[in-house]
Amino acid sequence: REMSSVPSTARWEKPQGKNPPVVMEKRFEIVGRGVALVIGCGTFPTWNTYPGLFAALVTGNPVIVKAHPNAVLPAAISVKIVRDVLAENEIDPNLVSLAVVADLKATRALATHPAVRSVDFTGSNSFGKWLTENARQAQVYAELAGVNNVVIESTDKYRSMLKNLAFTLSLYSGQMCTTTQDIFVPADGIDTDEGHKSFDEVAADLGSAVEKLLSDAVVATAVLGSIQSPETLKRIEEAPALAAQPSDIVLASRKLDHAEFPAANVHTPLLMKTDAANEAAYMQERFGPISFIVKVADATAAVALSEQIVRERGALTVGLYSTKQEVIDAMTEATMRAGVALSINLLSNVYVNQSAAFSDYHATGANPAANASYTDSAFVANRFRVIQRRWHV
Amino acid sequence: REMSSVPSTARWEKPQGKNPPVVMEKRFEIVGRGVALVIGCGTFPTWNTYPGLFAALVTGNPVIVKAHPNAVLPAAISVKIVRDVLAENEIDPNLVSLAVVADLKATRALATHPAVRSVDFTGSNSFGKWLTENARQAQVYAELAGVNNVVIESTDKYRSMLKNLAFTLSLYSGQMCTTTQDIFVPADGIDTDEGHKSFDEVAADLGSAVEKLLSDAVVATAVLGSIQSPETLKRIEEAPALAAQPSDIVLASRKLDHAEFPAANVHTPLLMKTDAANEAAYMQERFGPISFIVKVADATAAVALSEQIVRERGALTVGLYSTKQEVIDAMTEATMRAGVALSINLLSNVYVNQSAAFSDYHATGANPAANASYTDSAFVANRFRVIQRRWHV
Repeated sequence: REMSSVPSTARWEKPQGKNPPVVMEKRFEIVGRGVALVIGCGTFPTWNTYPGLFAALVTGNPVIVKAHPNAVLPAAISVKIVRDVLAENEIDPNLVSLAVVADLKATRALATHPAVRSVDFTGSNSFGKWLTENARQAQVYAELAGVNNVVIESTDKYRSMLKNLAFTLSLYSGQMCTTTQDIFVPADGIDTDEGHKSFDEVAADLGSAVEKLLSDAVVATAVLGSIQSPETLKRIEEAPALAAQPSDIVLASRKLDHAEFPAANVHTPLLMKTDAANEAAYMQERFGPISFIVKVADATAAVALSEQIVRERGALTVGLYSTKQEVIDAMTEATMRAGVALSINLLSNVYVNQSAAFSDYHATGANPAANASYTDSAFVANRFRVIQRRWHV
Repeated sequence: REMSSVPSTARWEKPQGKNPPVVMEKRFEIVGRGVALVIGCGTFPTWNTYPGLFAALVTGNPVIVKAHPNAVLPAAISVKIVRDVLAENEIDPNLVSLAVVADLKATRALATHPAVRSVDFTGSNSFGKWLTENARQAQVYAELAGVNNVVIESTDKYRSMLKNLAFTLSLYSGQMCTTTQDIFVPADGIDTDEGHKSFDEVAADLGSAVEKLLSDAVVATAVLGSIQSPETLKRIEEAPALAAQPSDIVLASRKLDHAEFPAANVHTPLLMKTDAANEAAYMQERFGPISFIVKVADATAAVALSEQIVRERGALTVGLYSTKQEVIDAMTEATMRAGVALSINLLSNVYVNQSAAFSDYHATGANPAANASYTDSAFVANRFRVIQRRWHV
């Protein structure tokens, strides 16, 4: 749409009083900005690569897909198919190529090459920061770390809420960029359709819901998948030390055996209680199946804390459970100020960590978790230029 | 258009096999990115300020117009009218404000303030570079220096061509960001409808055309306007020293008296011949009424030199005079590669340094003279974000 709205030709007349007008013919050509580098991530080697790949390709740029060393095959298959399709259409298949380099130095050299005019990246804050500081010749589209969170103020469907959250925490072992990490619950507990629930009851019930979901080994291994990187395994191992006391660990992470893939590192989610004062524990991203049930003073404090985290640490998703319109309104205002998508009272088979293609804006670009959305005009409009020429008729 | 294409609501259904579908209601809000800073320039305090001002305002951002110290009044009048219109429509007029600061430090503090999320700037390469390196919290839209140029290969309307170029060189004393600085002419001269013209004849005839245009003092002062900055006056004074020999000065700059404004610094254009080897003279921007007729080996060398300058130094405009389709094609290819707008054989009252509103793309963003066009999707699409929320129906 951004490209089709550029006219390819125009005839322009400049009135000259009583004389005939000056008439000019104009041509407008869409020209790509240059080589696009798309740096894939290990957890979602296709989902997070395709938006940048196709946005760059469709706007007229050659693309180099730099595969994550842990996930070369999915990228290679994708690139091969793209190249086949290009060749079938008599377009030079070298328009899209695959870079397989394990050395960070090689990636840095690619990203800072003068011919590279855009870089799409999903990954760590540290490399994202390096890119924006060093790949100055390119437009950088970066999806980085964030601290996704959910506020629970009240609910009229307690069991459904717990089931919904349990699935969110478990799916792909919390290795989605959209997985909830922090769940804010008032110290006085919450009102539900099953009566008032204390903070500790909510925590325990959520732990039970996760356990129940994962009690069947076949379901569990299918939902959890395996842990992608050694760093995540290390985080799972070290996270229990963040608990102020052993009883704060609501649910310990267990290693499961996978019947079909014995070498797979399958781990159930780790769930901890913590006080809002313990910011060091829950206010930074702990990527993987590690979540905190954070005790906050009240609903107002929960909304404020959620907004603060989105502003300072970034987030791709925020959720809210509340039966009160004023709380929903306050959270809506907070998420608009902080710039993050809000899911309200999700219960059925729709989860806060899922973005629907062609219906949800994945990331906003308005908070530190990402400087771009995958699905808006800004993601494509700056990848091409319009070059015009004009002459008298 | 970028904003109106974002739906404000959506109803989304997720099929559930034999069960009724999950139905969700979604809302999408357009939210500005934050405070916009528009830094005006001295030569065009309104024309170069309005695009950023209105692009930022219409996408929901408060705007601070930082006026150039030499041109506060036009900015102040504009801001006052905008504020009046806002107030008339019961919108807080403080949405648009004027910053009048002479101290560069104050401008730097403004540009790097965390609340400022976009900076529009027209001006020097040095401050533009400083902005992109330091105002990292903001999206910077910068129009900088460039070396606009014209290639003359041949013409079938010699007199009209000279008249057209003479006006371009004279208008506003060459202080337009689109004014031609370098004119490339083959060493062997050019074919015209008045027979073959040698390099020296073309140079002399262009000088005469400028002199003739400015022979009437009333016309001259109206066309030339006055020199805006002391730096430009200094450049006019020093530029003759760039000539390899006194005879290379085709036309010396003369100071004219303005009947109505005795204090105005009115100066006629300085026109010099130079050899293509003398790169130090013509390959950097010499802002103001200073132009070079550059002797190149042949038409092919002229096209190549034009492309090289656009790539390395940037340009907002490039022109060509040629009766040969193959030269027009070569220049078209060169300007598409280098990313600059091309005007071909301009003769009548249309000049290479004029961009028509709603018809020409001013700047391309594809060469060093500017990182954005004023008139494409990319100029507005990245100034706002879409924040969504969703819930079950």
